[in-house]
Amino acid sequence: MSELRQDPTTFDWVIIAKERAKRPHEFRKHGPTKSSLLSHSEECPFCPGNEDRTPGAVAVYGPPDNWKIRVVPNKFAALTPEGNTQRDEWKMFRKTLGYGRHEVVIESPLHNKCIAYMEDDHVEQLIGVYRDRYLELKKDPNIKVIIIFKNHGEAAGTSLEHPHTQIVASPVVPPFIRRRYEIATQHFDNTERCLYCDLLFTEFEAKERIVQESEFFVALHPFASRSPFETWIMPKVHSSSFGKIAAIEIADLSRILKGIFLKLHVSLGNPDYNLIVHTAPVDDEHKTYYLWHIQIIPRLTLAAGFELGSGIFINTSVPEETAAFMREVKVP
Amino acid sequence: MSELRQDPTTFDWVIIAKERAKRPHEFRKHGPTKSSLLSHSEECPFCPGNEDRTPGAVAVYGPPDNWKIRVVPNKFAALTPEGNTQRDEWKMFRKTLGYGRHEVVIESPLHNKCIAYMEDDHVEQLIGVYRDRYLELKKDPNIKVIIIFKNHGEAAGTSLEHPHTQIVASPVVPPFIRRRYEIATQHFDNTERCLYCDLLFTEFEAKERIVQESEFFVALHPFASRSPFETWIMPKVHSSSFGKIAAIEIADLSRILKGIFLKLHVSLGNPDYNLIVHTAPVDDEHKTYYLWHIQIIPRLTLAAGFELGSGIFINTSVPEETAAFMREVKVP
Repeated sequence: MSELRQDPTTFDWVIIAKERAKRPHEFRKHGPTKSSLLSHSEECPFCPGNEDRTPGAVAVYGPPDNWKIRVVPNKFAALTPEGNTQRDEWKMFRKTLGYGRHEVVIESPLHNKCIAYMEDDHVEQLIGVYRDRYLELKKDPNIKVIIIFKNHGEAAGTSLEHPHTQIVASPVVPPFIRRRYEIATQHFDNTERCLYCDLLFTEFEAKERIVQESEFFVALHPFASRSPFETWIMPKVHSSSFGKIAAIEIADLSRILKGIFLKLHVSLGNPDYNLIVHTAPVDDEHKTYYLWHIQIIPRLTLAAGFELGSGIFINTSVPEETAAFMREVKVP
Repeated sequence: MSELRQDPTTFDWVIIAKERAKRPHEFRKHGPTKSSLLSHSEECPFCPGNEDRTPGAVAVYGPPDNWKIRVVPNKFAALTPEGNTQRDEWKMFRKTLGYGRHEVVIESPLHNKCIAYMEDDHVEQLIGVYRDRYLELKKDPNIKVIIIFKNHGEAAGTSLEHPHTQIVASPVVPPFIRRRYEIATQHFDNTERCLYCDLLFTEFEAKERIVQESEFFVALHPFASRSPFETWIMPKVHSSSFGKIAAIEIADLSRILKGIFLKLHVSLGNPDYNLIVHTAPVDDEHKTYYLWHIQIIPRLTLAAGFELGSGIFINTSVPEETAAFMREVKVP
């Protein structure tokens, strides 16, 4: 029969549907594993030669006519740096202008170069760009939370196939993030220890859900994974904010991140996925209660009415099995 | 520029992306509006003649050889009535057996008969079945929450096209539901009034988001709609639990529910959607803090990395505009 498991970082429950569970290899997408895209597309606004089809760059890495990474405001920005963040209330309804920033990191000039197949130093530079933008965006005192995320593939909600990352700087701390932070704070108040560091120690003791380890990071499939092959990459050295990542950690992270994407790409056939950098709200990052980390969520299944109505996810895989499978995947 | 709006029932924020917003009619799916399915499918386990392809019925409405509605345990149940609900804890990890119930309400013998095109008295009987099952399932003292939901169409996560509703009886109250309930409780503690009733009064005053009204119910597009055409159907007479719905209210609800589905079907071209009945946890339904209601979420857009990482949804429509559009939709 199935199992209900609780995520210790959110208290959310998931159903591990063991009897409905597929074997890990059954989640493989059909078709070729390597991207079938060409390295350049005339129509793509992110390809070299089409720079005038995006808003003006806020940062360019490499020579302007031969750039390696380019950061531009999102042409269809969800939030823009106009107006103010003052709340406007009418009876029960509270709103504010959509003040903030919404940037796109164009990861490479090549239309088909995803992280799994990038040069090591390019991935390293890319993560450095994430940090640069984080540090730049947090200078605005109206910004309360910075969300770095990637949508890879149609099922993950991307509309442009050229590899890119998005960064949204929000003027509100949403309850979704505040709650995670509060659960970690409560744990710290009780124990004087970081919830996520404790979790990591426990996962090391259990061993079975760990996929890969590097000098500074661990990749694992969490105990209460919401979806098959959900992967967390967690720093071993405590730090509440991604913005504080050191150069030596960036180099190490780039290798483990590329390794995980390569394993996912090879074993599941270029699955659609979302990547999210979870980090403390800007005004809380000086405290030690939280641990920043990366979550990678392959979009292999769909949230339906039950998930939308209960917040309980049904996972048709067993994290210990998918982690064991991933450990064995051989990559170039 | 865009607008950040807060849902008073969850405190979640949504971004109403006014500049990216489509006009209401642009959300229409292409292709024929009427279901292109036949009324019977040899392969369908829910069609008459294939009754042996589901687990034995727990309830049958109408004569056994000419049934109108049939309720069966889900063959691939997420939760089953085996074992117990005792928590099993190892260090930071808490789990329990997947105890519970997972039923399927086969809404009609006809393979292609969705609620929008059912006879009025059939919809009425269907909602009566929801209530019957709710009352039956809550007799088990281990059951803490009952979630009634519908997945219509592929984008809504359905795997079988024959119209059906699912009911999951869960042995845990998930934080997602508890939080909604607590926000309503806090409001009641402060004001001695129901949060949702107050919301309804405010919506009546604002008028612009109300789609349709009947004797006992109101259908509206909420102020902080997470997605285009999100529709709430709320009772005008306060009641915390769907299980307490009266026969006269069922008759009225069946007409407004069918009307809303007909409007959605006609104007958007049979959109995929989820329906969820939100109701108080079983052990709290004797209190008056909550208001049960129905949420209909057409799956016209996709939650991507930003939504998964922040809990903030980006809505590319404006609720006042979609509600005005829906008010004008003429139905047979």
